Amino acid sequence: MSRLLIGIDFGSDSVRAVLIDAETGENLASHVHPYRRWSEGLYCDAAQSRFRQHPLDYLEGIEVVIRRVVSGVDPARVAGIGIDTTGSTPCAVDREGTPLALKPEFAENPNAMFILWKDHTAIAEAARINEYAKTHGGTDYTMYEGGIYSSEWFWSKILHTLKSDPAVRGAAFSWVEHCDWIAGELCGRTDPLTMVRSRCAAGHKAMWHASWGGLPPEEFLSGVDPLLAGLRSRLYTETCTADVPVGTLSPEWAGRLGLPGNVVVAGTAFDCHFGAVGAQIAPYELVKVVGTSTCDILVAPEVDTCVRGICGQVDGSVIPGMVGLEAGQSAFGDVYAWFKRLLGWAGEVSIPELEKEAAAIPPGSTGILALDWFNGRRTPDANPHLRGAVLGLNLGSSAPMVYRALAESTVFGARRIIERFREEGVPVKAVAAIGGIARKSPFIMQMCADVFNLPIKTPAAEQACALGGAMFAAAAAGVYPDLDAAMRKMGAGVDRVYEPDPAHAAVYEEEYRRYLAYGKLLEEETMKNV
Amino acid sequence: MSRLLIGIDFGSDSVRAVLIDAETGENLASHVHPYRRWSEGLYCDAAQSRFRQHPLDYLEGIEVVIRRVVSGVDPARVAGIGIDTTGSTPCAVDREGTPLALKPEFAENPNAMFILWKDHTAIAEAARINEYAKTHGGTDYTMYEGGIYSSEWFWSKILHTLKSDPAVRGAAFSWVEHCDWIAGELCGRTDPLTMVRSRCAAGHKAMWHASWGGLPPEEFLSGVDPLLAGLRSRLYTETCTADVPVGTLSPEWAGRLGLPGNVVVAGTAFDCHFGAVGAQIAPYELVKVVGTSTCDILVAPEVDTCVRGICGQVDGSVIPGMVGLEAGQSAFGDVYAWFKRLLGWAGEVSIPELEKEAAAIPPGSTGILALDWFNGRRTPDANPHLRGAVLGLNLGSSAPMVYRALAESTVFGARRIIERFREEGVPVKAVAAIGGIARKSPFIMQMCADVFNLPIKTPAAEQACALGGAMFAAAAAGVYPDLDAAMRKMGAGVDRVYEPDPAHAAVYEEEYRRYLAYGKLLEEETMKNV
Repeated sequence: MSRLLIGIDFGSDSVRAVLIDAETGENLASHVHPYRRWSEGLYCDAAQSRFRQHPLDYLEGIEVVIRRVVSGVDPARVAGIGIDTTGSTPCAVDREGTPLALKPEFAENPNAMFILWKDHTAIAEAARINEYAKTHGGTDYTMYEGGIYSSEWFWSKILHTLKSDPAVRGAAFSWVEHCDWIAGELCGRTDPLTMVRSRCAAGHKAMWHASWGGLPPEEFLSGVDPLLAGLRSRLYTETCTADVPVGTLSPEWAGRLGLPGNVVVAGTAFDCHFGAVGAQIAPYELVKVVGTSTCDILVAPEVDTCVRGICGQVDGSVIPGMVGLEAGQSAFGDVYAWFKRLLGWAGEVSIPELEKEAAAIPPGSTGILALDWFNGRRTPDANPHLRGAVLGLNLGSSAPMVYRALAESTVFGARRIIERFREEGVPVKAVAAIGGIARKSPFIMQMCADVFNLPIKTPAAEQACALGGAMFAAAAAGVYPDLDAAMRKMGAGVDRVYEPDPAHAAVYEEEYRRYLAYGKLLEEETMKNV
Repeated sequence: MSRLLIGIDFGSDSVRAVLIDAETGENLASHVHPYRRWSEGLYCDAAQSRFRQHPLDYLEGIEVVIRRVVSGVDPARVAGIGIDTTGSTPCAVDREGTPLALKPEFAENPNAMFILWKDHTAIAEAARINEYAKTHGGTDYTMYEGGIYSSEWFWSKILHTLKSDPAVRGAAFSWVEHCDWIAGELCGRTDPLTMVRSRCAAGHKAMWHASWGGLPPEEFLSGVDPLLAGLRSRLYTETCTADVPVGTLSPEWAGRLGLPGNVVVAGTAFDCHFGAVGAQIAPYELVKVVGTSTCDILVAPEVDTCVRGICGQVDGSVIPGMVGLEAGQSAFGDVYAWFKRLLGWAGEVSIPELEKEAAAIPPGSTGILALDWFNGRRTPDANPHLRGAVLGLNLGSSAPMVYRALAESTVFGARRIIERFREEGVPVKAVAAIGGIARKSPFIMQMCADVFNLPIKTPAAEQACALGGAMFAAAAAGVYPDLDAAMRKMGAGVDRVYEPDPAHAAVYEEEYRRYLAYGKLLEEETMKNV
């Protein structure tokens, strides 16, 4: 009997598991579990861009999805588990590595929970980090993270929490990323001082880099803010690529999951990095994970510059031995969901129905132009102050017309990322798209092909991120000698290729210029008032 | 028994009549009739800003509303009828003064119908008129109309029609404004060469001015476009203020209406001018007629400059012997109606419910900023190329928040008009508001008081425009010696005064600066691409 691997993908709204046959790559079972507290809107305030998740949502979720996918198979066949999560999604932990929200006194305190990637409460702290990084007179520690540190990232969120919540500050021994903690939790290795830390999370979000010996030095961090003083020594120096095992299941978790104790838990990474692997990424191919937001991954054998304005370039963050470059949009499907909520004030809204009407409107025909910065802008040049806009409205502007303009804005935002890579000397030779929108919306995919003027490939893997997790698990558990072999054996190939329509591409070229021009104006005006 | 006067107000969507007791000013009856064809959306294309009205909608409407308000009273008591209409709402007529759409061969041709004030199909023609007015080397005939001729006005619409519809061009002997024609029709005086023409319509929209002997000279008009050659001689030279009678009811109309043939039909004007009279306008008071759009009227004993960027200053257009100054916004309630339609894609929308939720949101708290140019901008500096916008959106921006921002944008647009009058040396000492929104929305009225930082008075007259018509009818029929006496005797006084809230006024001062700054940017960028 062939070995089985479990891939776990913690997304923004739910966690999913897949069970993959190592020899055939066949997806034998999958299950999705929405986070209960999150789906009730607890601990969040969208108007303030505050998004928190309770660790119990994660613990309950992983147990449900794993038990479900392995039910009916022989547990002894399961060789390993590979886990990705969103990020940067950090949480304060105590000396034992327990997230503070799991302690009774912090059970309802949002600051003691995981601070979801899209939380934007730490804008002032990101500004401080950027200012100090550029003016402290030494190395710019943001250089491998695109040169602009984001309010969505590790240190900004830590500093904001330490500043605003003395109780959490007093109880926080150390901090973890969701991916670090959940793998450590399964293996009973949660001591913050020895917990295995993800190369991907550390390199892309925490300014970790081998050339300066790990995290930025103490004098830099305490210079940013005295509240950070001493924390570095309670974090980490070493990091691991995800093909390296974190350990095996702890007796407690082996029992809870009904699996043998020798099941290997692989190293972790952020979801899109695993997704790129699940989509069988090749050098200089951009794999876009297109969902509520996008995360765009490119791998290159080597990159000899620091690419400005992206979300980092980290040796081994995607494929061991290659540089992984990350970029992304902080809202994509979330923009459509916003419009659905807006209209939803009046009644029930079907996105497919809106899309159908929007698809019948010729490109460039309405004069409506939108800017997709509803959650700020991540790439290029992260700027959390920016906001969404809808311009060019007249009394005849209908809901499907506005929807189409919003869709175009997200795709124009995606094109800007490709342009930035090219401007910085990194070729983008091909584009693949995975994630919910890649699978569900030929409308958006065709628009991507037309706006990028490039074919768009959609890989066949239904859950590419979770499949990537299974590939890493196969490598970590020794089912295959390395990740490359696992990718070749377990990959699902291509489902569909969208070819650009030359007439639409020409119209969109003009519309994209308008998007850039109006975007530049509004960005400049916004920044005058910050 | 006291004499009775009928006031008729042709609005954008319906016609209404009131029956007023000359001695008490009491409103004895009123009736509203929606235009049937218009309400079915016939002959219009909102996405192209094409808005046409069939003359049968007017003829059917006036008969219904007059018959209804006089039913039950002694017809012999009726002394006069005063009529206002929207404008500029011109129509091509034949040699007898019959609107072409009343002839079988043109019955379904939108170009043979009345071109409603808010129709924006004549943008190119307005641009040509402005260009020629500034460059032909002689008098700038737009000088008393704010210095910018609008696509919403008489000559633009005529030229556009002559250019685009050869059949109408061939059949059009002359052109009439809705107000000129309907009064002439009631009196059997529709010969285009002798029809009584409204001072208000001619002076504000057709570049008529006593100082150059009426309409602009033939060489100017044919210089604008050879298609206009010769038309001047088939229009008019003389105009009348609305206290002068047009005539008495024709036998045909006396029969249709059930009224005596000696009922006087007063001169006419555009709705807001009558509304200002109905609201008992005083010198340097701005009376805003606030409905789908706004029309803002100010009267001054004399004005020694040409006020830039308004909709004209005409001796006697409101009150005989005073200069009437007109300004306005091309969309106000229409902006709210647009949002209602947008949300309406999903289900039924109640504006009062939206307003209730919007009113609970503190000013300046959402970051959302809108521009109210959904139908271009009229005052200041008419510009039909401008469009509406909603800026500063994030994922938490709700429908009531966006609604509030849209409401604020219309009120900021209103403030710009007050600022323009003041910049040009015309004091604005008080503000009154009439029209549907003034009566229905304390939310918007309070916002006006806060944004203008001025008290806002709402006159008690429920139908101020129609009441103004009754006042003019009383003057024209000799029930009172002059308009001033009729205004004093028949006026309804003040219903309510909204006082500004100083805290809100301070917040809005900031928001208004943002509105100006973003508006300037977007206007400049738009004009680069025209």
